[in-house]
Parts: sequence; C-alpha cells; structure tokens
Amino acid sequence: MLQASQIVLDPIKQLRNDFKNGLQQVDNLILDSVSTNEPLVQTIAKTLISAGGKRIRPLLCLASGQLIGTLNQNSIYLAAAVELIHVATLLHDDVIDESPLRRGQQTSNMIWGNKPSILVGDFLFAKAFQLIVKTENIQFLDILSTTSSKISEGEVTQLRCFNALDLNVENYLEITEHKTATLFSAACHIGALTAGADKNTAYKISQFGKFFGLMYQIIDDIDDYITTNRGKSQGDDYQEGKVTLPVLLAFQDDPDKAFWHQCFSSDNQPPFEQALERLHKFDSFRKCRAIAKLYGKQAQECLQPITNDISYLMQAVVESSL
Amino acid sequence: MLQASQIVLDPIKQLRNDFKNGLQQVDNLILDSVSTNEPLVQTIAKTLISAGGKRIRPLLCLASGQLIGTLNQNSIYLAAAVELIHVATLLHDDVIDESPLRRGQQTSNMIWGNKPSILVGDFLFAKAFQLIVKTENIQFLDILSTTSSKISEGEVTQLRCFNALDLNVENYLEITEHKTATLFSAACHIGALTAGADKNTAYKISQFGKFFGLMYQIIDDIDDYITTNRGKSQGDDYQEGKVTLPVLLAFQDDPDKAFWHQCFSSDNQPPFEQALERLHKFDSFRKCRAIAKLYGKQAQECLQPITNDISYLMQAVVESSL
Repeated sequence: MLQASQIVLDPIKQLRNDFKNGLQQVDNLILDSVSTNEPLVQTIAKTLISAGGKRIRPLLCLASGQLIGTLNQNSIYLAAAVELIHVATLLHDDVIDESPLRRGQQTSNMIWGNKPSILVGDFLFAKAFQLIVKTENIQFLDILSTTSSKISEGEVTQLRCFNALDLNVENYLEITEHKTATLFSAACHIGALTAGADKNTAYKISQFGKFFGLMYQIIDDIDDYITTNRGKSQGDDYQEGKVTLPVLLAFQDDPDKAFWHQCFSSDNQPPFEQALERLHKFDSFRKCRAIAKLYGKQAQECLQPITNDISYLMQAVVESSL
Repeated sequence: MLQASQIVLDPIKQLRNDFKNGLQQVDNLILDSVSTNEPLVQTIAKTLISAGGKRIRPLLCLASGQLIGTLNQNSIYLAAAVELIHVATLLHDDVIDESPLRRGQQTSNMIWGNKPSILVGDFLFAKAFQLIVKTENIQFLDILSTTSSKISEGEVTQLRCFNALDLNVENYLEITEHKTATLFSAACHIGALTAGADKNTAYKISQFGKFFGLMYQIIDDIDDYITTNRGKSQGDDYQEGKVTLPVLLAFQDDPDKAFWHQCFSSDNQPPFEQALERLHKFDSFRKCRAIAKLYGKQAQECLQPITNDISYLMQAVVESSL
C-alpha cells in the first residue's frame, strides 16, 4: 500500500493496482451472474462484460470500503451490481443514441439490433438487483433502486432537451448529476456502508462520489471534443447532436447564435472542425475545466477528514484527472 | 364475501368486486410512486397507468393473500410493484414489437417515440424495486428480481425464435412460462407470503399462479385470432409475425408447410383470413383450448387443499376463463 509521503505518478493506475484482486473478483462474479441458458442473452452479456471498460464505479465502491475498514463479500456483490446497472444503462443509451461504437467496439445495437439490446439491458438490471439479495440488506436496494430511477429521469430530461441550446448551465449540471453522478455517489455510499461506515461518514463519502462523478462527466465532455483514440470517435457528441457543457458555455458568449443553432437544430450541420475552432475561440474548454476543478476540489474536501493512505490516493486520483 | 354454495355467474367480476378497495389502493400507490419532477416521465407514466388495463396481476396478489390470512400494507406495496414491472415490460415490448395499439389506445412508442418509452420502462422498473424497499423484506426482492430476469430471457428467446416455425410446442410453452407465467406466479407467491403463508403453502399458491398464467396466455393467443374489440386488433400476432401456439399446432398437422412459411418467413404474407381458415381447418383452437384446460385443472388442484370462499372463487375464475 502506498505511503502518504510517496509521490504517485499515476494515481489511477496505482488505485487500480491496489484493488486488482477485488476487481478480478467483481469481474468473475459479473460473468458468473450473467450465465444463462438463453444463448443470445449469454452472448451479448458476455461480449459486453468482456469488452472491459474502465470499471471506475466498482473501483470507487471498493476503494470507498477500504477508506473505512476492510472489504468483505458484500463489497464485491455490490461493486458488481453497480457495474451491471452501468452496463445496462449503456446498452439502452446506445439504442437511444444510435451509437455505432462504444469502448472502441461496435455497439450491441449495431451487431444484434435494438431489440435484443433493450431486453439484455433489462436482464442486466434484474441481475444487478439479484446480486443485492445476496447482501441480505434492504438498505442497498433502497440506494440502488433510487439511483436507477434518477438515472432514467436524467436520461429523459436530456432527451427532452436534445438540440436545446436554451438549456442553461444549471439544467445541464442537474442532468449530469442524475445521469452520471448519482451512480458514482451510490457506488461510494454502498462501498462505505459495507465496510461499516457510520451514517455521517457514509454520507460524506457518497458526496465525494457525487462531486467526482460531476467532474468526471465534464472532463468526458471535453475529451469528446479534443481527444482521439478513446474508444469512441472524436466529436461523437457533436455528430449525435448532444448539447454538452463546452457548447453551452460557447453559446452563452458567442454573438453568432445562428451558427450554434445550425450545429444543433438543423440537418445542415457545419463540419466538426468549425465547431471545434469556435469552442477554442470562446475558451470553452478552459471554462469547463474550471468548473470541473471546483467539483474536484469539493470531492477532495469530502475525503480530507479521513487521513489514511487510501484517502490520499483517492484525492490524488481527483487531482490527476483535471 | 361469496358463500361456497352460491353460484357465481361472473367469477372474475366478483373477484374484482371483492378486492375493489385493495385495487384502488394499489392504483393510488402506483400513481403516487411515479410522481416526478421530470414532466415527460410524469406524462408517459401517468398516461400508461391511467389507461387502466385489467390489473389481473395485482388482483391475483391480493387474492392470494386473502386465501391465507388478511391483507396488509405489504400486500398493497407488492401488488403495485408487480403491476409496475408488468407495465415496464409492456412498454419495452411495444417498442420491440413496434405495436401501434395497446388496450385500445395508441402505444407510448407511437405517441412519444421509442426513446422515451425505453427510458420510462427503466424508470418504472426502478420504481417497482423502490416499492419493495418499503416491505423491509429482502425475500420479495429475491422473488421479483429473479422473475424480471426470467421475463427478459423469455423475451429474448421469443425474439430469437421470431419467424421460427420449427419451434416445438415444448419450446413455446417454456417461453410462455418465462414471459408470462413467472410474473403471475410471483404475484401469487408474494401475495401468500405477505399474509403469512408457510413455505409449502406459498409454493403451492405460486404454482397456482404459474399454471393460471400459462392458461391465461394460451387463451390470449387464441383470442388474438378470434376475438375483436379487445383493445388490440384481431390478428396482431399474425401481422407482427409472432408464431404462437395455434399456429404451431396447425403447422404440425398441415401438409402444406410452404403456406405457413409464407405466412411467417416471407414479405409476401397471405391475408389474415386465409391463415384463420387454415387454423380452423386443423382444429387448432380446440387443441389449444385443451392444453389451456390442462393448465387450468392443474391451477385448480393447487388450490383444492384450501377450503375457503376465496379459494372456491379463484377456482371458479379459472373455470370461467376456459
């Protein structure tokens, strides 16, 4: 385990390494729990799970446990449940967004069609809830079912605001909180509770998850415009007509509103490069990063009362993400 | 309450009447639990719930409780959870089947599109699981999450066998058990458990639900061909290319296999009336009804050890459905 004094060059790699065994157990449990006699469900579920993904939510769940005490079997069950809910959400998202690629692979809806993707999403949701049964603790059902309903509400709000440049920054952040941050928050919350955290401490750690999730999503929105080779195509959000924070901030300041309306409200979308140039011109990415930093700072503050190595490492992860 | 000696002309109407108050409480609870600040979710969810439907699953849940003891608040929570799971499934089904009508009304996917329908389905699933929290009993989560995963597996199997005339009767019944009968079974099972049934009795009552569900689905498959004015169009299954039991039984006996392949495996589908004529010619509906009767008899047998008025009434409901 890392010493507090040690300088960590790649904290997320270090964190992943610290929880390598736990994450392996989570993966095994997920693969085991999606075993079924229905071959098409089996194929889709296993392909999705085996495609990997960053497993950031189970990692946060396990790390939040370790912050407080020691991991136990419930931590593994719930980290797996959180990831299953996440993958189910992705499956339905990809159908809704008509996305061709996810994690650098063709999406399930492209390979097998929308119909099995919807149903396998439902299957994975159900399997997540079956894993909660193993903890014999209804409190975890409370947290994860509330989280699931918030995610779908956030998704519908986003859908309703599709192409809506009049979405203000507060609305956008509220959607992000529902869509992304609640599951991060839940992962941390239940991780802390499985390790025996008291109510107040568990709440603080869930708040860490929420702020981390908000930061994470904003960084992801920036990366969608500026990073290549991240498993998705550069400019996916733009091509799909999704109005995200960088766009909202540029739209606020840009006197040429018509340009942005053409980008997001017409069939005649200007080339990606033009939008990118304008985002740079209005300094959108720097402004986004400033907002992400505020969330990162709030996330770190939630962990500051906990003075152990894992807390320092998690705070370093936040720092390095910005 | 009905006397055992009394002849009941319309047992399902009588049963509904006996549980009028309970069903009203279930409806109120459902409407209350889908309340949300997201207006589109609210609109879709309330429209769906208010459209009515037969509420057969919550009715079975409440009646199964009364078979054993008295209803309590948990019976209401769980009857509502079962109906929410059912409505969520219907929403996703209608997207998958591209159905234009449900319960005589335009389907949600036709009015609002597929995307919100998928998400509101997810929302209703989550709300169902939130209601289970109120019972503070993880056993109900076990039953309902297992049921949900079986439903989606059954749906995928059906999807995989779409247009598959080589589906044998056993496969078909297995799909029906997953898709329909497990939720009927779960409704009865949890209804009995909330009223304090012992394990064996609860199992028997869950078996009643399973056989009742199988019977119910087969009758529904017959009705799809022969009944008009049932909220769906006559011949929906045929138009949607769904191979159901009447077709499978005709296909087995009909030497003109090519006709049926043309019905279900080509773009050049013969008119509905031709298929209907052939189903009559090969006596499919009578054969289906015979299978439904066997299930009905098995359902009744499960309740025979319980010698109270509600048991007689539920057995009469089975009898009258055939």
